[in-house]
Amino acid sequence: MAYRVIDIKESVYDDNDRQAAELRGELKKKGIFLLNIMSSPGSGKTTSLCATLERLRDEMKIAVMEADIDSDVDAATVEAAGAKAIQLHTGGMCHLDADMTRQGIEALGAEGMDLVILENIGNLICPAEFDTGAAKNAMILSVPEGDDKPLKYPYIFTTVDVLLISKIDVLPYFDFSIEKCAERVRKLNPNIRIIPISARTGEGMDQWCDWIREQVRAWKA
Amino acid sequence: MAYRVIDIKESVYDDNDRQAAELRGELKKKGIFLLNIMSSPGSGKTTSLCATLERLRDEMKIAVMEADIDSDVDAATVEAAGAKAIQLHTGGMCHLDADMTRQGIEALGAEGMDLVILENIGNLICPAEFDTGAAKNAMILSVPEGDDKPLKYPYIFTTVDVLLISKIDVLPYFDFSIEKCAERVRKLNPNIRIIPISARTGEGMDQWCDWIREQVRAWKA
Repeated sequence: MAYRVIDIKESVYDDNDRQAAELRGELKKKGIFLLNIMSSPGSGKTTSLCATLERLRDEMKIAVMEADIDSDVDAATVEAAGAKAIQLHTGGMCHLDADMTRQGIEALGAEGMDLVILENIGNLICPAEFDTGAAKNAMILSVPEGDDKPLKYPYIFTTVDVLLISKIDVLPYFDFSIEKCAERVRKLNPNIRIIPISARTGEGMDQWCDWIREQVRAWKA
Repeated sequence: MAYRVIDIKESVYDDNDRQAAELRGELKKKGIFLLNIMSSPGSGKTTSLCATLERLRDEMKIAVMEADIDSDVDAATVEAAGAKAIQLHTGGMCHLDADMTRQGIEALGAEGMDLVILENIGNLICPAEFDTGAAKNAMILSVPEGDDKPLKYPYIFTTVDVLLISKIDVLPYFDFSIEKCAERVRKLNPNIRIIPISARTGEGMDQWCDWIREQVRAWKA
């Protein structure tokens, strides 16, 4: 086990937007693309992440920050998939802000990385309210959660650049319409990129990895 | 459409535990059993609730309070299933406390009800930190979310009296062990009652409804 586990301290800053802009600027200078991934608990973040690492680990240097209330299950899993990993314990906190993200980046040692992925806390409400300093924000919505989530948790859909609709291999067993979901999402966020994926069958993973490649290339340009 | 939609105001009280105890005492005097149901987004709270209403609506008077950031989908659905319903809009708030619950109870007009079910906001973190004044707390964890949730969101499991493991009809399509999950949950909460259910096939629904019947009877005794 090489990954570290650190306890994130509550932020002392009340100007999170400025902290986030500063962090983003520093990461830009260093050519480190920080991607913030948000979702409900159990949407398949870690599984999707491992399938992503498998496809990208030979072409770029990737590190992962696993934010979690407790436990190290995720850091152990992503490390086994070949990424540098750190587990951030947030105590009871329900979101990460820019200062907490910075604590993670510093403890991780992100120098020389091309891509740092922040797996945010499983929660559709609080994480969406805080800019972490990430270059881009992604959200994963899994088929079993239902295509009505954009109606029920609208705000988060307005804050993300890309939406992965995950677990599409189980579409036959659930009442979930990708079209209906996409329509509801686009009403909230007309510019969002929507990519249906299955980490299990690999469907959509190429499109998703291409999206990441483009973003990392543009960030470093 | 008979159900109302009300906007819940942020509480002015900082002694939530006292507010909760007071509300619980008043509801006890009136013989109203308040059940607080918590879960992730998309765990099947509303579907499970409708299957519950179908089975209990002829033997007791039931009302449902649907807490949500936005939208009225749930109140419309449970009203169609035969319960008195109210939709509580919480704005951006990620939880309900006792005063917000009281606002809902008063707007609902809960007099004469045997059972009031509060469908809390879909979130495994914040709602667990606030006593709503409910007589008992329930949690729904759906099979697609994974059996590792007790490791990742331990606190909520310590605060509930009963855990429904929902969507067990899709067990063949997911890596989810009910035994492993139950063992992890019991480590956190040895006295919890665990009931696997499927609202679709009806499996487990009798046990769950029996649990509610016993609780309502004991509360009114």
